[in-house]
Amino acid sequence: MSKVQVAPSILSADFARLGEEVAAIAEAGADYIHVDVMDGHFVPNLTIGPAVVKAIRSVTDLPFDVHLMISPIDAYIDAFVDAGADILTVHPEAGAHLHRTVQHIKSAEIKAGVALNPATPASAIEFILDQVDLILVMSVNPGFGGQKFISSQLRKIETVRQMIDQTGRDIRLEVDGGVTPETAPQAISAGADMLVAGSAVFKNGPQAYAANIAALRPKG
Amino acid sequence: MSKVQVAPSILSADFARLGEEVAAIAEAGADYIHVDVMDGHFVPNLTIGPAVVKAIRSVTDLPFDVHLMISPIDAYIDAFVDAGADILTVHPEAGAHLHRTVQHIKSAEIKAGVALNPATPASAIEFILDQVDLILVMSVNPGFGGQKFISSQLRKIETVRQMIDQTGRDIRLEVDGGVTPETAPQAISAGADMLVAGSAVFKNGPQAYAANIAALRPKG
Amino acid sequence: MSKVQVAPSILSADFARLGEEVAAIAEAGADYIHVDVMDGHFVPNLTIGPAVVKAIRSVTDLPFDVHLMISPIDAYIDAFVDAGADILTVHPEAGAHLHRTVQHIKSAEIKAGVALNPATPASAIEFILDQVDLILVMSVNPGFGGQKFISSQLRKIETVRQMIDQTGRDIRLEVDGGVTPETAPQAISAGADMLVAGSAVFKNGPQAYAANIAALRPKG
Amino acid sequence: MSKVQVAPSILSADFARLGEEVAAIAEAGADYIHVDVMDGHFVPNLTIGPAVVKAIRSVTDLPFDVHLMISPIDAYIDAFVDAGADILTVHPEAGAHLHRTVQHIKSAEIKAGVALNPATPASAIEFILDQVDLILVMSVNPGFGGQKFISSQLRKIETVRQMIDQTGRDIRLEVDGGVTPETAPQAISAGADMLVAGSAVFKNGPQAYAANIAALRPKG
Amino acid sequence: MSKVQVAPSILSADFARLGEEVAAIAEAGADYIHVDVMDGHFVPNLTIGPAVVKAIRSVTDLPFDVHLMISPIDAYIDAFVDAGADILTVHPEAGAHLHRTVQHIKSAEIKAGVALNPATPASAIEFILDQVDLILVMSVNPGFGGQKFISSQLRKIETVRQMIDQTGRDIRLEVDGGVTPETAPQAISAGADMLVAGSAVFKNGPQAYAANIAALRPKG
Amino acid sequence: MSKVQVAPSILSADFARLGEEVAAIAEAGADYIHVDVMDGHFVPNLTIGPAVVKAIRSVTDLPFDVHLMISPIDAYIDAFVDAGADILTVHPEAGAHLHRTVQHIKSAEIKAGVALNPATPASAIEFILDQVDLILVMSVNPGFGGQKFISSQLRKIETVRQMIDQTGRDIRLEVDGGVTPETAPQAISAGADMLVAGSAVFKNGPQAYAANIAALRPKG
Repeated sequence: MSKVQVAPSILSADFARLGEEVAAIAEAGADYIHVDVMDGHFVPNLTIGPAVVKAIRSVTDLPFDVHLMISPIDAYIDAFVDAGADILTVHPEAGAHLHRTVQHIKSAEIKAGVALNPATPASAIEFILDQVDLILVMSVNPGFGGQKFISSQLRKIETVRQMIDQTGRDIRLEVDGGVTPETAPQAISAGADMLVAGSAVFKNGPQAYAANIAALRPKG
Repeated sequence: MSKVQVAPSILSADFARLGEEVAAIAEAGADYIHVDVMDGHFVPNLTIGPAVVKAIRSVTDLPFDVHLMISPIDAYIDAFVDAGADILTVHPEAGAHLHRTVQHIKSAEIKAGVALNPATPASAIEFILDQVDLILVMSVNPGFGGQKFISSQLRKIETVRQMIDQTGRDIRLEVDGGVTPETAPQAISAGADMLVAGSAVFKNGPQAYAANIAALRPKG
Repeated sequence: MSKVQVAPSILSADFARLGEEVAAIAEAGADYIHVDVMDGHFVPNLTIGPAVVKAIRSVTDLPFDVHLMISPIDAYIDAFVDAGADILTVHPEAGAHLHRTVQHIKSAEIKAGVALNPATPASAIEFILDQVDLILVMSVNPGFGGQKFISSQLRKIETVRQMIDQTGRDIRLEVDGGVTPETAPQAISAGADMLVAGSAVFKNGPQAYAANIAALRPKG
Repeated sequence: MSKVQVAPSILSADFARLGEEVAAIAEAGADYIHVDVMDGHFVPNLTIGPAVVKAIRSVTDLPFDVHLMISPIDAYIDAFVDAGADILTVHPEAGAHLHRTVQHIKSAEIKAGVALNPATPASAIEFILDQVDLILVMSVNPGFGGQKFISSQLRKIETVRQMIDQTGRDIRLEVDGGVTPETAPQAISAGADMLVAGSAVFKNGPQAYAANIAALRPKG
Repeated sequence: MSKVQVAPSILSADFARLGEEVAAIAEAGADYIHVDVMDGHFVPNLTIGPAVVKAIRSVTDLPFDVHLMISPIDAYIDAFVDAGADILTVHPEAGAHLHRTVQHIKSAEIKAGVALNPATPASAIEFILDQVDLILVMSVNPGFGGQKFISSQLRKIETVRQMIDQTGRDIRLEVDGGVTPETAPQAISAGADMLVAGSAVFKNGPQAYAANIAALRPKG
Repeated sequence: MSKVQVAPSILSADFARLGEEVAAIAEAGADYIHVDVMDGHFVPNLTIGPAVVKAIRSVTDLPFDVHLMISPIDAYIDAFVDAGADILTVHPEAGAHLHRTVQHIKSAEIKAGVALNPATPASAIEFILDQVDLILVMSVNPGFGGQKFISSQLRKIETVRQMIDQTGRDIRLEVDGGVTPETAPQAISAGADMLVAGSAVFKNGPQAYAANIAALRPKG
């Protein structure tokens, strides 16, 4: 398993000065910029679209890890590729043609991820695992920040970890939802190697970002 | 007819420093902050949602004029009220219950507007005009900035102006799409008293905003 | 214009003893049994379907006037015909093929009506008026009982009355929403000849039904 | 495994006198009142909504076991809680966010169930089992009464029984569809401990209800 | 008003030898090849898509007049342009952005039409008339061949004729549905100058096509 | 395992002379006529509907193997039965009630199949396998001809082969997508006994069809 990486979600940043916020987390040691795109249909919230991603793209060289909570999704892939996404992660629950969507993303020569909602079984990724670069296990129901880590997802993280290891491929196992210094070690122990965190990173202002990020990484 | 007002659309602002941009247009003489909310379903683009509106709300005291290109819309009204919208404008084309949506907005004690797509006849507002504070005539197809003013909408502006005047009520007639110093006089002459402009305001950087806004107002 | 008729809506009846309630309003002088069918999609409430209509059909010989707030509707027409409806009223806002739906209803040799939501212009019925037996002007937004009469609909009732009279055909003009002894005379004066009422009929218990119904009819 | 309970479905009751029917089955020994809510979208039938549930709620102290065949469902949870439901059972096939829906139900401090359509694999509940109080295996395709028990579901009942037992939690295993004195023993033998029955309970009139219910319970 | 033209609908041709059929009607004097594309969603029938259009495109030089009964439509415009359509006609009832769709068609440098369902008022085209090359008045409900001409549409044809004449633009007024030698003169008299006919053209085999087409044209 | 059969897909035939093409592949040794029905909603392409199937039905006695890429599907089953289909294959990804759809097909006394998209796990058919006559493993994403065989589906073919063999029932295992003389042996080796091929059959004109079909069958 690879080194644990931290992907702060800008959903918890100050949208009035998003460029500065992105620069600050990059400076504070973030490994990725995590972007939560919600369309008000797949999930009951509407956040930001490709133009916002594009506006902040030049602020940092860090890879942009964009989680697309959109359904149907295919018509929007190109806009996020053009906006500068490095990873596009989509949901099997969002439609009938997950494999086509992943093919579409890969054809743009960026990385593709698949996200699993809390009630979705790991079997949903069985026949796409050979194509993807990242599996995202949602440890809260997607839609809003500030929710509590759902502990039953630890078992799913373990299952996905085994599935990934059996492929022998280089696939990140990302966890998103309620990740804090308390829950991060559980997620890592279950097999996660990439942690999304919103409020846990952005709390207490920019001067705390570096410490907040460090607090999520494995100790010792 | 009341004084012509200008509502710069932040769709053309720099989303990396949206707070500054909003402050700059307020300083430059904008009368409203115009926000284009798109959900990727009612229109083929996804822009920003309530959290972004909330983040920039405290930057200025100007009223926030929020155009909701969302369908179905009712579940999102409260979020935009909470985010600080002063006017919420919705589309009759987005559903079967325009009157209920307008009632919902008014019950929050903010202003309600109705927007007409280019092909939508003025008759669509005939039985809602007694409830609204604003009619928005779209002079481009909603979804993207930078489009050309559709001149057939001048005739619709004239028709809506007559309908408004017959009510004797205080209803703004807003025009959005391709508004420039060249098309603004036509829109005003046809009866508009509130102009949305994106690129025409935000071009040439913040030091040009005041002149850009002034150039849209009637001369003399 | 024909005699004013009253159609109590069983939406305000006691669903625990619906047979008795229907018998009671029939006994109290109702002209129709009005049934509000809502599917939780066209309107934000779910009420009753064909099996309930069928269960109460044998209680009375009065015609059943069934208002279908369902979208899409065509697949459900036959079930309501089989359940014993005498009039089926549908919405133009519910789909693209109103004429087909009305043809479908008429082919079952029952009466067909078209309902107009508060914001829908009267022009929506211009090319269906030659086929229908009833126009229903909604004087509240459909979905819930107990709402206040929307007075702007009086003007629509007047317009529809003129349209009906010009056809020379026998078409009832029904009004539904906030109908009380206070608003009924306004609706009648504007041209309505069929009044739906829920709480205004069912208030104060069965012994009051006859008086409640009588109070809605024109005086003198 | 706990004692087998019987939940008569009022879909087979006389809707003209639903209060009496509910009282009669309560008197006849029912353990629950089972309510089948269908919206005409998730299933091809439309039955009854929250107002009907509310109307019969006071007739008995028995728990109301409400099966929601609605999609999307989240906007209707509160209405059924308010109407007095004790258990709300929802479908994973109805949307992408089963876990959120179950959280929503539990936050109202009532019980939550999950129902599986005949073709849905048991794996659909693997990551929600720790949250629910009931699993409902549909032994007919939901939508209509009077269908024949699908025997392939016995194997699913067995699988779900094992999954439940492994949790160590108190979760009812309910079976609905074609349950008769002939099929009930098979369902019980496979692991069911809660039986829904419609026509098998309501046949031959109220004086037969007690015997009908007794005939479904395990012998000896 | 221009010369009356006939556009045989291949919906009534023999799909087993469509190339021959198209050649035969071209030989028999057809002015256009009319293609009815139905998607099983906007209308309750599914017919043929772009690959079929492409396959028969080279058979004749006659313009292909393609009526798209698809909703949503925008994603399919390009495929029909590529297949060789000369006119693409779309429905205002199919979505909220008719003007965008027409712009899209025109940007491909082919002709654009708008079709009106029987219950749709003529006001639906008021603000698109300056952009289009054809208005199609449906004289049956779209979906199936062999229906009877709806005579109330004669009045709509008259209204549309007046609207077209007022523009001074070259816009064809096409009528589709139940067109026979009996109804054609009525449609022409009301203002139509382009007639779609299916069974009236294709009846009695290829040797009758020329006479069938001739019988639809005005006499004398 | 039964003899390997070949089902040429007419999606790659010449639609201008479909009758001839069907006759030619029947003559060339095809075992079935495979028809790909696409509605532009379940998949991003629109092909042909029941009228086209009916038109070519009488050309041959070979069974028609019709793959329905339609969602929702139930309203179209009867039309394809009437058109002469011998096998109707549907997708579990297309809706919530796969078992009902299969029951519907079987009630017409024709064969029923279930198709699995590339990312869909084999567990999707676990509780329908006792009802069906055919499982179709898609080795490309459905929608277009000419795609490359997705090799991860070989593992799914193996899994489905085991599931079928365990039932002891006579169920064909069909593979569709990128089937060529190179990939056919892999599919057969993994357990397939029915191969769909489009361009691999129809390339090089009718005189090559027999050889093209033969080249797909197992050697020796």
